[in-house]
Amino acid sequence: MASLDRTLIANLPLFSGLKPEELDALLSEAQSVRYPKGVTVFHQDAEARAFFVLLHGHLRVFKLTPDGQQVVVRFVVPGEVFGVAMAIGRTVYPGTAVAVADSIALQWPSAAWPRLAAAHPELANNTLQTVGARLQDMHTRVVEMATLEVERRIAHALLRLAQQAGRKVETGVTIDFPISRQDVAEMTGTTLHTVSRILSAWEARGLVESARQKITLRQPHQLMLLAEGTG
Amino acid sequence: MASLDRTLIANLPLFSGLKPEELDALLSEAQSVRYPKGVTVFHQDAEARAFFVLLHGHLRVFKLTPDGQQVVVRFVVPGEVFGVAMAIGRTVYPGTAVAVADSIALQWPSAAWPRLAAAHPELANNTLQTVGARLQDMHTRVVEMATLEVERRIAHALLRLAQQAGRKVETGVTIDFPISRQDVAEMTGTTLHTVSRILSAWEARGLVESARQKITLRQPHQLMLLAEGTG
Repeated sequence: MASLDRTLIANLPLFSGLKPEELDALLSEAQSVRYPKGVTVFHQDAEARAFFVLLHGHLRVFKLTPDGQQVVVRFVVPGEVFGVAMAIGRTVYPGTAVAVADSIALQWPSAAWPRLAAAHPELANNTLQTVGARLQDMHTRVVEMATLEVERRIAHALLRLAQQAGRKVETGVTIDFPISRQDVAEMTGTTLHTVSRILSAWEARGLVESARQKITLRQPHQLMLLAEGTG
Repeated sequence: MASLDRTLIANLPLFSGLKPEELDALLSEAQSVRYPKGVTVFHQDAEARAFFVLLHGHLRVFKLTPDGQQVVVRFVVPGEVFGVAMAIGRTVYPGTAVAVADSIALQWPSAAWPRLAAAHPELANNTLQTVGARLQDMHTRVVEMATLEVERRIAHALLRLAQQAGRKVETGVTIDFPISRQDVAEMTGTTLHTVSRILSAWEARGLVESARQKITLRQPHQLMLLAEGTG
């Protein structure tokens, strides 16, 4: 663990409220693992043998339907806990996580969760906040899918991605991990064709710039008006 | 608290793993409140001053969009914890909860949550399992909305409601709380018109029986085949 940035780790939400010696004890049980771009961290329905904190990189988490269709659940960004199936009472992973960029994660055996959570109640409390925030995100997504036309849903989805993982660049705010039009389609419950049509129209208006696996918001404020139905 | 069924309360998921004296201490701080049918328990965006466990009755939780559209988030059944905004790091309720039947809930001040969760780590762990299960439910709903045609979504929604709150009756399994076709439309991201059309077709085939605010599954197995796309 010596090679990892200790200060960075101490500031992660999962470890909020832990004393330095508690964090040391926790980290002494963690394993640091590299996941090169394209590698699967865990598979849907596989035994949930570990839980993780992402230190570096980005993951794409998706669910496969019995019909073989894929739906992106979310992207995991550095600092986030993930794979906490055990903590929420499940024995298998509910989705598949794939590294979309070279990534590094800390991992602990799931079997250690009950003991660690008992010894450090902050762990359960902090995980509860993360899972609660994800639940709110999913509520938002369901409400948008049920009530908004597709153009507004796509605008909301891009703005949320920019908020989660935006990086300022000369031309605006770029989403700082590889994201495809197909991903955006799955996140908004529409087709690749529709996403392509709308992004092309936005591109013509100078609102966004999109290349292969790359989306940049050139006019986030204008996109916000669109999302709110006033653009 | 003397009038409430102590054994029933001790078996609720929220209190799992608590010692009898811990449960006593917790219950001594709780207030039991009646919510007659139609009464609002809390409003979306109001200060989250309390968290609750439903002992009796049923609640409908919904979100209002800025445009004034309503979307049902879920129904709360007896035994469930709800209104845990504080525990997930929010200061306001993310939705509105209304009693759809005469209901009774235990409530605690939200301000007591940090102290109670520190004294009884099981509370946070048990709440984490509930919130995690809700997150899985919402993932399922998003995946269905993104990939399934509306008839299969409605079949899945009714089967889940029957699993959550089904009661065996002579003609099949009835959903044991008042539920409207509009509710089903909001839960599946479609229109009242479409739900009515599909339920009428199913009624003609003898699959369901639906009266005002009442839905009975006459042939749950047949509905399951429909949900799976093989019916």
